[in-house]
Amino acid sequence: DTQQTAPTGTQALAVIPGDGIGPEVTAEALKVLEVASPVKFESTRYDLGAERYLATGEVLPDSVLAEIRGHDAILLGAVGGKPNDPNLPPGILERGLLLRLRFELDHYVNLRPSRLLPGSVSPLADHVLERGDIDFVVVREGTEGPYTGNGGALRVGTPAEIATEVSVNTAYGVERVIRDAYARAQKRERKKLTLVHKTNVLTNAGSLWWRLFESVGTEFPDVTTDYIHIDAAMIFMATDPARFDVIVTDNLFGDIVTDLAAAITGGIGLAASGNVNPDRTAPSMFEPVHGSAPDIAGQQKADPTAAILSGALLLDHLGHPDAAAAIEAAVLADLSERAPGATRRTSEVGDAIASRL
Amino acid sequence: DTQQTAPTGTQALAVIPGDGIGPEVTAEALKVLEVASPVKFESTRYDLGAERYLATGEVLPDSVLAEIRGHDAILLGAVGGKPNDPNLPPGILERGLLLRLRFELDHYVNLRPSRLLPGSVSPLADHVLERGDIDFVVVREGTEGPYTGNGGALRVGTPAEIATEVSVNTAYGVERVIRDAYARAQKRERKKLTLVHKTNVLTNAGSLWWRLFESVGTEFPDVTTDYIHIDAAMIFMATDPARFDVIVTDNLFGDIVTDLAAAITGGIGLAASGNVNPDRTAPSMFEPVHGSAPDIAGQQKADPTAAILSGALLLDHLGHPDAAAAIEAAVLADLSERAPGATRRTSEVGDAIASRL
Ligand SMILES: CC(C)[C@H](C(=O)O)[C@@H](O)C(=O)O
Ligand SMILES: CC(C)[C@H](C(=O)O)[C@@H](O)C(=O)O
Repeated sequence: DTQQTAPTGTQALAVIPGDGIGPEVTAEALKVLEVASPVKFESTRYDLGAERYLATGEVLPDSVLAEIRGHDAILLGAVGGKPNDPNLPPGILERGLLLRLRFELDHYVNLRPSRLLPGSVSPLADHVLERGDIDFVVVREGTEGPYTGNGGALRVGTPAEIATEVSVNTAYGVERVIRDAYARAQKRERKKLTLVHKTNVLTNAGSLWWRLFESVGTEFPDVTTDYIHIDAAMIFMATDPARFDVIVTDNLFGDIVTDLAAAITGGIGLAASGNVNPDRTAPSMFEPVHGSAPDIAGQQKADPTAAILSGALLLDHLGHPDAAAAIEAAVLADLSERAPGATRRTSEVGDAIASRL
Repeated sequence: DTQQTAPTGTQALAVIPGDGIGPEVTAEALKVLEVASPVKFESTRYDLGAERYLATGEVLPDSVLAEIRGHDAILLGAVGGKPNDPNLPPGILERGLLLRLRFELDHYVNLRPSRLLPGSVSPLADHVLERGDIDFVVVREGTEGPYTGNGGALRVGTPAEIATEVSVNTAYGVERVIRDAYARAQKRERKKLTLVHKTNVLTNAGSLWWRLFESVGTEFPDVTTDYIHIDAAMIFMATDPARFDVIVTDNLFGDIVTDLAAAITGGIGLAASGNVNPDRTAPSMFEPVHGSAPDIAGQQKADPTAAILSGALLLDHLGHPDAAAAIEAAVLADLSERAPGATRRTSEVGDAIASRL
């Protein structure tokens, strides 16, 4: 993932602002990117999301996907309409847009760093926080597992209905994400990798994950490993999150664990993520973990920090670790000096962070 | 579940102490049950678990299952050997014993109450705890979902391996657990039921759960409802657990959510559970949520409170709500007077609680 030398020319950026607060936070992320980046970005904006679907019935036309594929990276705001909108069946945008992008562009590493940043308020008690610094990364598999859309339903709407969801796990898919996670762990100070699964119940998939975790581990003798069940992981997250360094896990467990990770580090307002294609056969996509929050959309109330930090992940992926670190440092400084209780407009937060660069 | 009139004669109890700390905590649960129960229990002990499997290769012989089936209720301690014992492949005991009992005895309501009991230490900060009392029940489906053991593996051990896990959801199975959850919500003060699922990704199963949640809801007009995704549920658990009253969810999400619930209410040392067959076509089974903790086995270090509270759930199920409430009150009193930091032997905790009855 880091063998790539920094490209020097202009970089083509596909921007999907999305719905709700998406456009507002994306604008701030772009503002900060522009100041921080050593290369120029040429952005193309793609209007995709609930609004477009409701207006046109289109989710992600093949021609748009093909265009997006031609970019160097993708910045996404947030996608999703009003809750329980009868014209927006659950899954339409998730499966048709977000997950389709992740699957088609082979984003097999869904990267979610979690740190308790200065000035952010954890819901955990001091006696837990005193156990050590919270600073871990979840490497969530992004192209398999229960997210494949395999499964189906029979006799829908009758008392004899049966609905299935199939978690698909391949050696190909599991091995590559595990290897990526080991490599990331090896680059960190603590060099520790934890596999999270449910091997005692999901024995087919669990056995595959466990065997590959063991065998790939022989390539990384300096990385210490452990295994915990997803249920026990909940307990550790709540009582001793400092124990984690890098976590590798499947698509669904990763979804669950990273929202809890975001919560304990001060909320999803700060959580950034990268949908990474480490082989660079297609552009990677960077997005805040939070949703579109339609209730506060257009009011300049949203915190753009997660979007801005997603921009830092994007820069890092494109080979500009120093610029990425500069954004992170600016965010950290901004967070430490945020007056508790004070509210700033979305653009004010973006301005404040940009002005530190 | 409560139409049953209290039986007056002797009740036949199948006791499965299990492994590790299982026998120690079960002994205290039985001690307290004996004092609290208005009916006499005739206990039969079944040695099942890691020890028996390692010695004989037997997990749950059909003849033993048939015998257990003849009892009025089952009390289980904990099952499981040393972690990573090569002679004990993951899933052998879980699938072969615990889950087999739940499935064969049709324990479709896996009941897990969560309360922040006095004197127990939550990992959550005061600003979260001040939002309100934590007092909710998770109704976890127990006989379907990703726990069915459906799925399989092909080309095991090769680079072309594929492993699947199939979540099976039927209208029959989902409707009955949802109806049970509504009925439980209706009996509580707040009368609020939350469905937890992942309808935006697991659209087949999600649609079934959602439609039955809506349609069964018409039978309970006084119960208010809401829906949250499993990932968002993590955030609410960590930042506003007081919002929950009754939660209904599938087998795997229930596993995950209840361990987090146990963590935020002071740890799985206190979490009790019932594997309930509300139709009473087979005995229900009561067990602490914690595991067998082989590292502290036989040292009288384990806290038997969760096992004792599981005994209270057992009494309630058998039609003795007053006796169940008396045990809970005794546990509460004991907890409030526990000297912080003081350690008592397992049997001392049992004695202390029994002596209050
Ligand atoms: C919106 C949804 C499809 C998505 C997921 O489940 O992956 C989200 O929760 C996330 O974590 O990015
Ligand atoms: C031991 C395991 C099979 C079990 C489960 O996953 O249900 C346990 O975690 C529980 O919650 O009772």
